[in-house]
Amino acid sequence: MVVVVEQNASEKDIEGIIRVLHDYGFDVHRSTGVNQTVLGAIGVKPDFDTRQIELLPGVAHVYRITEPYKLASRSFKPENTVLDVRGVKIGGKEIIVMAGPCSVENEKQIFTIAKSVAESGAKFLRGGAFKPRTSPYAFQGMGEEGLKLLRRAADEFGLLVITEVMDRGQIELVEQYTDVIQIGARNMQNYTFLKELGKTSKAVMLKRGLSATFEEWLMSAEYILSGGNKQVALCERGIRTFETATRNTMDISSIPVIHAKSHLPIIADPSHGIGIRDKVIPMTRAAVAAGADGIIVEVHHDPDHALSDGAQSLFPHQFAELMKQIRLIAEAIGRKVA
Amino acid sequence: MVVVVEQNASEKDIEGIIRVLHDYGFDVHRSTGVNQTVLGAIGVKPDFDTRQIELLPGVAHVYRITEPYKLASRSFKPENTVLDVRGVKIGGKEIIVMAGPCSVENEKQIFTIAKSVAESGAKFLRGGAFKPRTSPYAFQGMGEEGLKLLRRAADEFGLLVITEVMDRGQIELVEQYTDVIQIGARNMQNYTFLKELGKTSKAVMLKRGLSATFEEWLMSAEYILSGGNKQVALCERGIRTFETATRNTMDISSIPVIHAKSHLPIIADPSHGIGIRDKVIPMTRAAVAAGADGIIVEVHHDPDHALSDGAQSLFPHQFAELMKQIRLIAEAIGRKVA
Amino acid sequence: MVVVVEQNASEKDIEGIIRVLHDYGFDVHRSTGVNQTVLGAIGVKPDFDTRQIELLPGVAHVYRITEPYKLASRSFKPENTVLDVRGVKIGGKEIIVMAGPCSVENEKQIFTIAKSVAESGAKFLRGGAFKPRTSPYAFQGMGEEGLKLLRRAADEFGLLVITEVMDRGQIELVEQYTDVIQIGARNMQNYTFLKELGKTSKAVMLKRGLSATFEEWLMSAEYILSGGNKQVALCERGIRTFETATRNTMDISSIPVIHAKSHLPIIADPSHGIGIRDKVIPMTRAAVAAGADGIIVEVHHDPDHALSDGAQSLFPHQFAELMKQIRLIAEAIGRKVA
Amino acid sequence: MVVVVEQNASEKDIEGIIRVLHDYGFDVHRSTGVNQTVLGAIGVKPDFDTRQIELLPGVAHVYRITEPYKLASRSFKPENTVLDVRGVKIGGKEIIVMAGPCSVENEKQIFTIAKSVAESGAKFLRGGAFKPRTSPYAFQGMGEEGLKLLRRAADEFGLLVITEVMDRGQIELVEQYTDVIQIGARNMQNYTFLKELGKTSKAVMLKRGLSATFEEWLMSAEYILSGGNKQVALCERGIRTFETATRNTMDISSIPVIHAKSHLPIIADPSHGIGIRDKVIPMTRAAVAAGADGIIVEVHHDPDHALSDGAQSLFPHQFAELMKQIRLIAEAIGRKVA
Repeated sequence: MVVVVEQNASEKDIEGIIRVLHDYGFDVHRSTGVNQTVLGAIGVKPDFDTRQIELLPGVAHVYRITEPYKLASRSFKPENTVLDVRGVKIGGKEIIVMAGPCSVENEKQIFTIAKSVAESGAKFLRGGAFKPRTSPYAFQGMGEEGLKLLRRAADEFGLLVITEVMDRGQIELVEQYTDVIQIGARNMQNYTFLKELGKTSKAVMLKRGLSATFEEWLMSAEYILSGGNKQVALCERGIRTFETATRNTMDISSIPVIHAKSHLPIIADPSHGIGIRDKVIPMTRAAVAAGADGIIVEVHHDPDHALSDGAQSLFPHQFAELMKQIRLIAEAIGRKVA
Repeated sequence: MVVVVEQNASEKDIEGIIRVLHDYGFDVHRSTGVNQTVLGAIGVKPDFDTRQIELLPGVAHVYRITEPYKLASRSFKPENTVLDVRGVKIGGKEIIVMAGPCSVENEKQIFTIAKSVAESGAKFLRGGAFKPRTSPYAFQGMGEEGLKLLRRAADEFGLLVITEVMDRGQIELVEQYTDVIQIGARNMQNYTFLKELGKTSKAVMLKRGLSATFEEWLMSAEYILSGGNKQVALCERGIRTFETATRNTMDISSIPVIHAKSHLPIIADPSHGIGIRDKVIPMTRAAVAAGADGIIVEVHHDPDHALSDGAQSLFPHQFAELMKQIRLIAEAIGRKVA
Repeated sequence: MVVVVEQNASEKDIEGIIRVLHDYGFDVHRSTGVNQTVLGAIGVKPDFDTRQIELLPGVAHVYRITEPYKLASRSFKPENTVLDVRGVKIGGKEIIVMAGPCSVENEKQIFTIAKSVAESGAKFLRGGAFKPRTSPYAFQGMGEEGLKLLRRAADEFGLLVITEVMDRGQIELVEQYTDVIQIGARNMQNYTFLKELGKTSKAVMLKRGLSATFEEWLMSAEYILSGGNKQVALCERGIRTFETATRNTMDISSIPVIHAKSHLPIIADPSHGIGIRDKVIPMTRAAVAAGADGIIVEVHHDPDHALSDGAQSLFPHQFAELMKQIRLIAEAIGRKVA
Repeated sequence: MVVVVEQNASEKDIEGIIRVLHDYGFDVHRSTGVNQTVLGAIGVKPDFDTRQIELLPGVAHVYRITEPYKLASRSFKPENTVLDVRGVKIGGKEIIVMAGPCSVENEKQIFTIAKSVAESGAKFLRGGAFKPRTSPYAFQGMGEEGLKLLRRAADEFGLLVITEVMDRGQIELVEQYTDVIQIGARNMQNYTFLKELGKTSKAVMLKRGLSATFEEWLMSAEYILSGGNKQVALCERGIRTFETATRNTMDISSIPVIHAKSHLPIIADPSHGIGIRDKVIPMTRAAVAAGADGIIVEVHHDPDHALSDGAQSLFPHQFAELMKQIRLIAEAIGRKVA
């Protein structure tokens, strides 16, 4: 922590600040300039509330000097984390594609879509069985029946499974069917849930909260990592901005910034990121060009009758075409679509 | 739903749109103007995804015409909801004051503070036993031991209890000790949790999410109301804006706007709203002047040694002084502090 | 500037950073802790681009330690600035009320409104002659003719004049008719204009930009102050947030925060802040309760036929009633409406 | 305009609303459903303030059904606008690259950089002579001397010129030296300035405001187009979000969305968009992959000594490498870098 003292602070004030810092257990280094004094306070309290010092007489500013996260940080672990999900690597040189419907709706639907995305080269089948919906009156998902269908469809076509868990009470059930657990944006700071996820043996893909900063997102990853689960990927799915013409604003810049700050892989979700089918395509291309380690895209063979998010689901032929484009872009930047 | 057709749409496009609306079960009324056609689509689908229509050829815009919430809406229930918590009325003419520390820390602390806030006129004792913390390394609350102390301290000084529940798994435990259940901002859209809260017999105070719109906030209240629990109050605790000089930006305008849109009472939390002790005072006054039905304020007898949020906790003498000011302001607008 | 060095930085990196800081002309103080080194860099470059240091190998963070503004800062001038506009004091103990229509429309309109607001106790007549409008097809104001009417109406009823200038080319003209020059939110960072305003002899009321932080707002005030004009007041008029139910989000917290950071007076504009007539009233009360030095409110005798912003204009009888309420609130906090 | 009537509105209220709409000159079409009445109000008032109707008794919602802009809209002009700047086409199949320093600093600097970016394939030389700076104490640009150097350097190496104009008073001067006039983000809603730009014979590149919606941005373009200047391009330069780790948040989604809403070309400015050199590269690639019609990038041969924005300027060898990558990406999506 660095404490900047006000220019006109008295020596008494400065001594008072130093005393309080000592009381809180910090080592204090003082730099006295001509106009201004700066105090370096070194200690072992990553969660210290700096406002306690801001309030003292004579204090101009207080800056925390360490990242509040550690295990998620690239300075703690410089080399990339590469998840190994039953032999498929996430975070390496290859870009992984996850595709499927928003919700599992019935056997025919999920098998049709699974076949089609497998043929185009997806490695994972996505599909929700528990759906977080803004309205209590909306379709809430098929539950365990949906999980069973999802697993069978994936197995049939050689795909892995990724699906959402909404609550710590569902973890045990969903673990039986999925390969990767997906955590939704609205749960990014559900701390009791995050702690539980630190104990699962499954990999976790943690979506970014609607208004989360990079630091908050990495702090949430830290909750899972500190619980003992090192298999964590991040997922950019768009943030809230003032724009209402799109569902969210897909923040492509999170890709290079997270790569600089953290060793964890980052997946892009352009379907939720922009929310309108024809614009999902350019945004997926952009995510790959910016360096995403994977993409997760909604695909539906009959989106007009989808029970949720049909408007942002690609038709299978659009998905096939998109795969061709991103293979070329991956090559242009020295990577490869798995 | 109102569908505005593009100015240059063909008759064939318009007929296509009407056919799709019929397929989805809507009654369609057509208004043909000189330059533009507008379709009114009337039906019973509050959660219909309007993007399904936006994508059709010839569609310029689609507007949902009904609020997605119903039970929370003032047009559904014009008269104010007044909660009755063991005889104390929230949402009536009187303004209710809730006060206490951020966290319950020990017996001496909670009894000292309870005594002091009761003497100044608070009706509720607040205090956290389960704490949502951004960092996994921070103090996470005393748990059940804290609940017991909180209840005993409140009972001793004739106060009611309000405390936070973080997860549906904690409801049953906390219900035994509290009078009102507080739901934190980060849980505002934790839907499995909200559903469970619809079944509790306790009143619920639902905090606004960090970036939630009024509609989303009322939709979350709708989840609780639709589960059968009609004892719901809302709590404004500040939203996120670009400003970093304050913890949050206390949105005083939510008070008159929520009063217009909903019959539910609204409580103001200036401690979290602004986050710095000396500015909590003017913001509390502002909330009362704007028409808040209650305030919840952090008070600590020794904030420098508080385990959480000391910087935003008032000293007991500041709280006493604040009570005097808000009594005068309440009178100026024809209300009264209970 | 404080430079925090990465925990694993080499001594060579640290020496490199120090060398570069010296090259830029800074004095460097080094604090070497067990785990981390912190460098204090002291110099006279308020506008130094700290990213130049952030990019160096071994740098973890850089913090600017001085406010980038000086003349606007309370640490530079601890006592309140009190503007004296022809004997009316803005920024003292008394709260000043400015009222009038959005736009000057014709003689009858401005004289009717001027009479009515004067009778209720306003000190200033507001009214636009040059109107910034989002649409090029909207009413753009009466121009000089409007200024003449505004001045005559104000003089007739013993009021002072405040009106907007949109461009540095209009300053000379408007100065002849107004007592205070109002700068609109969209011009808050029009720097060539701000420089010119440093040279006028009139007081300036600078509105906050739609998404401006407090620091940016004070930097814009600094432009005017550094040009030699010390008669500057700030005006909170609402910021942009995600909420679309109101025109803007009136940020009441700017009042206590600006009072802490700066010696300049702050006026509240609830008409633009919330944008709907019936909610202007509680928001005005809140602004006074929070400590505003003045309020500026739109009033129109026939708002249904106003050429602009009728929906947010109070009827004269509402304004009269509001004046009574704020007199009581001012008293409750030890102030007085002038 | 569509007026949705409240479910419990009386017939008298509905008639009252219709009467007011007629008074304002609208044609009214009424659709009476079982539960709800909807009124279509058709007229020729693009700037009508819909709040005038929202306030009437019985009104639930009002929706404007026409875009407030017309000349900028793709429904008005379906085919792409292609600017022709002395033979270089902006908005066609080819992607145009603009590069150069943030500010013109001296002859040697601008000639060195011009030579290098020309060799790598840029078509335009960028460089500021008038600089909008947050601080009045920062370097404000070389003025006319800088314009002369910029023109000479561009001519020497076969480049076109793009440079910023900050104020309507500077247009006449800058027109003599530049090929395209750049309008900065903080001037996007400087309406007196935009009107003047409608009269210049030069093409204009209009940057997006820091918090501007797509509609507001296109409304500002409308100001220029409606003044008679049809040579307008838009420039995405990043918006403000809650993230503080980057200068701005580059909104890549504006590229496909603007292409859908408007016929005007869109240029991407990743240097301001993200603000840190090494991340400019992936963001430029992403912009091209998303379909940008051009890019504008800061390049400096000695960024450590740049007078402004050195931290976001590429080294010439990085720029050369970037050109290679975007040529490959352009090919992957069926376009070409000019």
